[in-house]
Amino acid sequence: MDFAIPARMQPILDGMKRFMETEVYPLERHGGRFVDLVPALKQQRERVKEQGWFAPQLPKEHGGMGLSLQEHALVSEILGRSFLGHYVFNCQAPDAGNMEILIRYGTDAQKATWLAPLARGDIRSCFSMTEPERPGSNPTWLETTAVKDGNDYVINGHKWFTSSAQGARFAIVMAVTNPDADPHARASQIIVPTDTKGFEFVRNISVMGHEGSDHDSHAEIRYVNCRVPRANLLGAEGAGFLIAQERLGPGRIHHCMRWIGICERAFDLMCARAAEREIAPGKKLGEKQIVQEWIADSRAEINAARLSVLHAAWKIDTLGLHEAREEISCIKFYVAGVMQRVLDRAVQAHGALGITDDTVLAAFYRGERASRIYDGPDEVHKIVVAKRALKKHGVTA
Amino acid sequence: MDFAIPARMQPILDGMKRFMETEVYPLERHGGRFVDLVPALKQQRERVKEQGWFAPQLPKEHGGMGLSLQEHALVSEILGRSFLGHYVFNCQAPDAGNMEILIRYGTDAQKATWLAPLARGDIRSCFSMTEPERPGSNPTWLETTAVKDGNDYVINGHKWFTSSAQGARFAIVMAVTNPDADPHARASQIIVPTDTKGFEFVRNISVMGHEGSDHDSHAEIRYVNCRVPRANLLGAEGAGFLIAQERLGPGRIHHCMRWIGICERAFDLMCARAAEREIAPGKKLGEKQIVQEWIADSRAEINAARLSVLHAAWKIDTLGLHEAREEISCIKFYVAGVMQRVLDRAVQAHGALGITDDTVLAAFYRGERASRIYDGPDEVHKIVVAKRALKKHGVTA
Amino acid sequence: MDFAIPARMQPILDGMKRFMETEVYPLERHGGRFVDLVPALKQQRERVKEQGWFAPQLPKEHGGMGLSLQEHALVSEILGRSFLGHYVFNCQAPDAGNMEILIRYGTDAQKATWLAPLARGDIRSCFSMTEPERPGSNPTWLETTAVKDGNDYVINGHKWFTSSAQGARFAIVMAVTNPDADPHARASQIIVPTDTKGFEFVRNISVMGHEGSDHDSHAEIRYVNCRVPRANLLGAEGAGFLIAQERLGPGRIHHCMRWIGICERAFDLMCARAAEREIAPGKKLGEKQIVQEWIADSRAEINAARLSVLHAAWKIDTLGLHEAREEISCIKFYVAGVMQRVLDRAVQAHGALGITDDTVLAAFYRGERASRIYDGPDEVHKIVVAKRALKKHGVTA
Amino acid sequence: MDFAIPARMQPILDGMKRFMETEVYPLERHGGRFVDLVPALKQQRERVKEQGWFAPQLPKEHGGMGLSLQEHALVSEILGRSFLGHYVFNCQAPDAGNMEILIRYGTDAQKATWLAPLARGDIRSCFSMTEPERPGSNPTWLETTAVKDGNDYVINGHKWFTSSAQGARFAIVMAVTNPDADPHARASQIIVPTDTKGFEFVRNISVMGHEGSDHDSHAEIRYVNCRVPRANLLGAEGAGFLIAQERLGPGRIHHCMRWIGICERAFDLMCARAAEREIAPGKKLGEKQIVQEWIADSRAEINAARLSVLHAAWKIDTLGLHEAREEISCIKFYVAGVMQRVLDRAVQAHGALGITDDTVLAAFYRGERASRIYDGPDEVHKIVVAKRALKKHGVTA
Repeated sequence: MDFAIPARMQPILDGMKRFMETEVYPLERHGGRFVDLVPALKQQRERVKEQGWFAPQLPKEHGGMGLSLQEHALVSEILGRSFLGHYVFNCQAPDAGNMEILIRYGTDAQKATWLAPLARGDIRSCFSMTEPERPGSNPTWLETTAVKDGNDYVINGHKWFTSSAQGARFAIVMAVTNPDADPHARASQIIVPTDTKGFEFVRNISVMGHEGSDHDSHAEIRYVNCRVPRANLLGAEGAGFLIAQERLGPGRIHHCMRWIGICERAFDLMCARAAEREIAPGKKLGEKQIVQEWIADSRAEINAARLSVLHAAWKIDTLGLHEAREEISCIKFYVAGVMQRVLDRAVQAHGALGITDDTVLAAFYRGERASRIYDGPDEVHKIVVAKRALKKHGVTA
Repeated sequence: MDFAIPARMQPILDGMKRFMETEVYPLERHGGRFVDLVPALKQQRERVKEQGWFAPQLPKEHGGMGLSLQEHALVSEILGRSFLGHYVFNCQAPDAGNMEILIRYGTDAQKATWLAPLARGDIRSCFSMTEPERPGSNPTWLETTAVKDGNDYVINGHKWFTSSAQGARFAIVMAVTNPDADPHARASQIIVPTDTKGFEFVRNISVMGHEGSDHDSHAEIRYVNCRVPRANLLGAEGAGFLIAQERLGPGRIHHCMRWIGICERAFDLMCARAAEREIAPGKKLGEKQIVQEWIADSRAEINAARLSVLHAAWKIDTLGLHEAREEISCIKFYVAGVMQRVLDRAVQAHGALGITDDTVLAAFYRGERASRIYDGPDEVHKIVVAKRALKKHGVTA
Repeated sequence: MDFAIPARMQPILDGMKRFMETEVYPLERHGGRFVDLVPALKQQRERVKEQGWFAPQLPKEHGGMGLSLQEHALVSEILGRSFLGHYVFNCQAPDAGNMEILIRYGTDAQKATWLAPLARGDIRSCFSMTEPERPGSNPTWLETTAVKDGNDYVINGHKWFTSSAQGARFAIVMAVTNPDADPHARASQIIVPTDTKGFEFVRNISVMGHEGSDHDSHAEIRYVNCRVPRANLLGAEGAGFLIAQERLGPGRIHHCMRWIGICERAFDLMCARAAEREIAPGKKLGEKQIVQEWIADSRAEINAARLSVLHAAWKIDTLGLHEAREEISCIKFYVAGVMQRVLDRAVQAHGALGITDDTVLAAFYRGERASRIYDGPDEVHKIVVAKRALKKHGVTA
Repeated sequence: MDFAIPARMQPILDGMKRFMETEVYPLERHGGRFVDLVPALKQQRERVKEQGWFAPQLPKEHGGMGLSLQEHALVSEILGRSFLGHYVFNCQAPDAGNMEILIRYGTDAQKATWLAPLARGDIRSCFSMTEPERPGSNPTWLETTAVKDGNDYVINGHKWFTSSAQGARFAIVMAVTNPDADPHARASQIIVPTDTKGFEFVRNISVMGHEGSDHDSHAEIRYVNCRVPRANLLGAEGAGFLIAQERLGPGRIHHCMRWIGICERAFDLMCARAAEREIAPGKKLGEKQIVQEWIADSRAEINAARLSVLHAAWKIDTLGLHEAREEISCIKFYVAGVMQRVLDRAVQAHGALGITDDTVLAAFYRGERASRIYDGPDEVHKIVVAKRALKKHGVTA
């Protein structure tokens, strides 16, 4: 076993960290609107391209850095330290996942039309799966339908948390095409340009007090007799759930390492605050044992979480997604829990300042509460892990 | 021991609960601005006056209901179920505390000028104690000064979390008047009309993503050679800290019971969601044991927290503030912790819906993170409790 | 609401506390065998009788103090501070519960034969319900049968955790008499003298490293064609489960207040240790904030737990067992959890001493782990609470 | 980064696991006395020697397997699954640590006399540092003295938790030789044969209800004018604390991996129980979501803890003890916490069976509560971690 960071990665990671600190952090506006930042972010994207870091998760033939999953995990950790990092590097959800699907399942025509401009950062996209009336925890149970009519699909349904729909050029829509098939084989993924008639943008949902904007938003969408060519189907008909699962596996690594980045930034802020803040003349906050305990518990938990994610990434790289399913589910809920606790301690260590938008902490605190819900709530992942453990003892629970 | 709710209170509480449900809840806009609600809230205030419920915490001679602290605690629980409740009934912080100070320490002139219109709900006020450069956990260590100059005080200093300053008619300012006295006797409380020259409103601080507005805001203020008559002094010079402590004791009961109200509303929402939400065809969320555990843990903790607050209120009512100090500190951190856990579970039970502003939960979740910080952070209260316990064993820790 | 301890109880409680401290604590031998203490305990029982405190939970006509449940709860708290307290006062489980059953369901003959000597402390008894092959969490599912044969019942089955069987004069056995009835109406309670042929004592089960002895033991029993007269039936045939439920309700109050007593003793020991122990020359353990946090969290949780139990007792006293079912289930798991945390902190505060038997803490720590299991494990009570909450929302989960 | 287990280790680990399951587990008597097992354990030691596995942690020249720390960590995990494992393989504390000291600091004569028979398993030893009157958390503050008198040291002092003293041939005693030196340079380590006059064995301390025996015991010792030759000094005079620190670093890896072994065994038992136990006819315990959550939380925490320990071992192997201090402190408290939670869940999943000695769980539960105290309590390690983190921000807390 060798825990050393690959030699070729270290200078890249160091450079990215410096770039984040000097170019990206200064752009953060914790209470503000994403759309107002877009021009400045675009400028930084150009500088990232100059460094050869753009879309780092992509294979080289698609313009990326050709990283292994574990290597990209280390990148994701650095970028995750700011809400803006992944966007500036063009590896943000949901676009990164959509690029992955297009690479793996897209026809040449689909790649030319949708993947290439996404990879260049010229357009944005969204992923339209979650429905308000159906539980996200049970992604095989969908109400949106896509019915074949001549050379078209006609889509009807109601979606929400179609994140980043505002300003996106196209959506990948999960819709039931084979209602009589086995539950896991009912849905398909279909590309729907957002200017298609019947793609009805209802609203950006207000989340934790904010409607959001542009890339940083979560839309409610209605599909009303929304007609697209059958050529827009991704992969096989009925393969929608399978493709979604494949997309989510590495996506969870990306998220988890992004969360580790958040943890590390919060940890640094907590320590800096403890080191600087006087609570009585000449007495620093950091001299207080309760604060020391927060720091120590956070350090131990972040270390443990980080190794767990890197291990899962290594297992996917070496043994494949299927073999790593238990580990992926474990880190999904475990790391989200660590992040919530670390953020809570960092907020508390900052006192009144911690709940203001004068630091990034409050934005992380309210914004990342979602981490325990999206891509499968904690409970779903826990049950996956338990059932696999029980199966080894001969039980199908 | 008798845990029965006093017979005279039950119908009042029932009426208030109905009023809240039919008149107040419908006004809630969880992602919106308070200032936009003010006209509608004013109408409801008139209806509250018609019921004889306005400013219930005040003695009858000041227009209130003449409730004991324990009785008002029960009222506060009902009103706390909505962010709007206390405002509509004119017992909201910081006005309620300021009224209390004026009743106890105000001269007849101060009462006529400031208490009477506050009690009628004609004006609002704020309390200007916390300073950004000094820890709120150590309220005897302030930098703002008030220097006597002829018949005036000249105030200089920097404050923040002067909550509700926007639109307030006056502030009660904590400023050091006796810098050479014992730490607990250095500061005084002084009334400063907000239109006084040198009362400089810097900004509404963005908190958890929102700048807030009107009553629902937290201002940063600079006092720059701000001159007010010495007649604006409240109580004795140097008594500022003592008055603040007296104000905070019952204030913590109000807050804690408000939090119990929040817990109860979140609990109801969680149960309703569990009872309604299908997670598979014919399968309700509430059939899941993990959700059942959230419900049970919440129920037990809310019960325990509620009794603790009512007991502390009873102890203040019967034995006085001083005797109840340990209990007050216990509930301050204990109830805030229960609330945070209950809200977290209720959010999780709602899935994606829980983080949206389509229910009140997200607003409670982000808005009440502050509860573990204001009026003394958890840690300060814990140390108070521990030191009192250790003192009984002969130790001055 | 009135939280004052009844005037008539305070001097009794004070006297009992003094008695415990001067007469009972000195008898404790934390690593030793109960049976070796019995002679000394018997002497103290005589002194308790002289005070008029013996079997305090019993009605006066049966020689007790005629206390309300809430009053006895306060007594149980005092006695609970030592493992020996309830025994010395003759209100220990399982005898107290058995006396309760005999009072309510016993025939005159049964009362004369079994209740009278129990109440006098002349004999001991046991309660034989739990079966190794069947979950204690599902008490309607039993394998032990009692088949009528002439004027007798013939009992066959396998029991364990028949606590205190060693040295007991009789057992109350739960056995299925009506296998075809509704699950809740299948079992009956039958008195079986322990010298009956076929009452086979297998062993005292080693629990947390100790086999125990005499009253302080948990036996495994086999009933092999064990024949007793039908006159030994308690109450109606098929009423066994109902009687058990009735017995457990007040029993849970007794247990919970005993646990509060344990908490209070551990809390006192923790504070005393913090006040005395030097961790560096001139530096007391209690000056450390982490220890202060343990003390404060424990104080707040014990207060909250204690009020919850007293409230549940009051509700049983005033509204009856049925109305208080939710509260009883809440305190069963909530108080056991508080106790576990308080004991854990007290052990940790004592360092190496905490795990030795030089204090009572280690005995409480290992001995009371059972509290989250006996009389219904946490999980069963949580589900009871959740289902009642959900029922109010129209769901039968 | 490469998380694969070294190819040469896997068959060794597999063989050891089989050996443990077939030869060692069957010897366990959870409520019994160690001394009664010694004959059978000695037989198994011979079989371990035949396999070439004896004293695996030792360099080959001393008869061991010459493993790296990380490799031995993997061995320790397997052996830790039983209380008997390390003893059977002769890598049990405190002998393993004493062998390490002798290898590094022993003179040739000391090695011949003490190390060689220890390595062969012919004798046992103990480590006599902790004092009842002085906090183990502050190991530089000792009262035991060793005064030079001619060619001898004369030792006086009072020790406890001199574990395994009963039956040991010698003790390594920490005693103050240089009282006027810097606190970290006051004490020395001295070999004291247990048959020396003045080495007074007071008692085996009763711990969690058991006095223990032989290797499995914790003695109280008085040193009364106990005279040994100065040639018994280990390393330099005044180097006692330094040597102790060096010994504890790898020792903590051994302990932590032993705890992981305990976790894994408890996890297996919990899953097996969940898979087998019927809670209603045809209904398995493992179908219950609460139990599934215990399994999942345990799996994720064990994974995270295990990787943290292996990482710390790797860091010691590659960068040295000093560079890995933060990681060592992190795992010491983090893994002990994980173990406590996993054991608690496994006990609860077993219901009444869980607290009996019919499984190993109760023995682990009560026996390993000590893990959060020995080798530095949680709190000491947390403060080490926090101070190092704060130092990076320029604070000496």
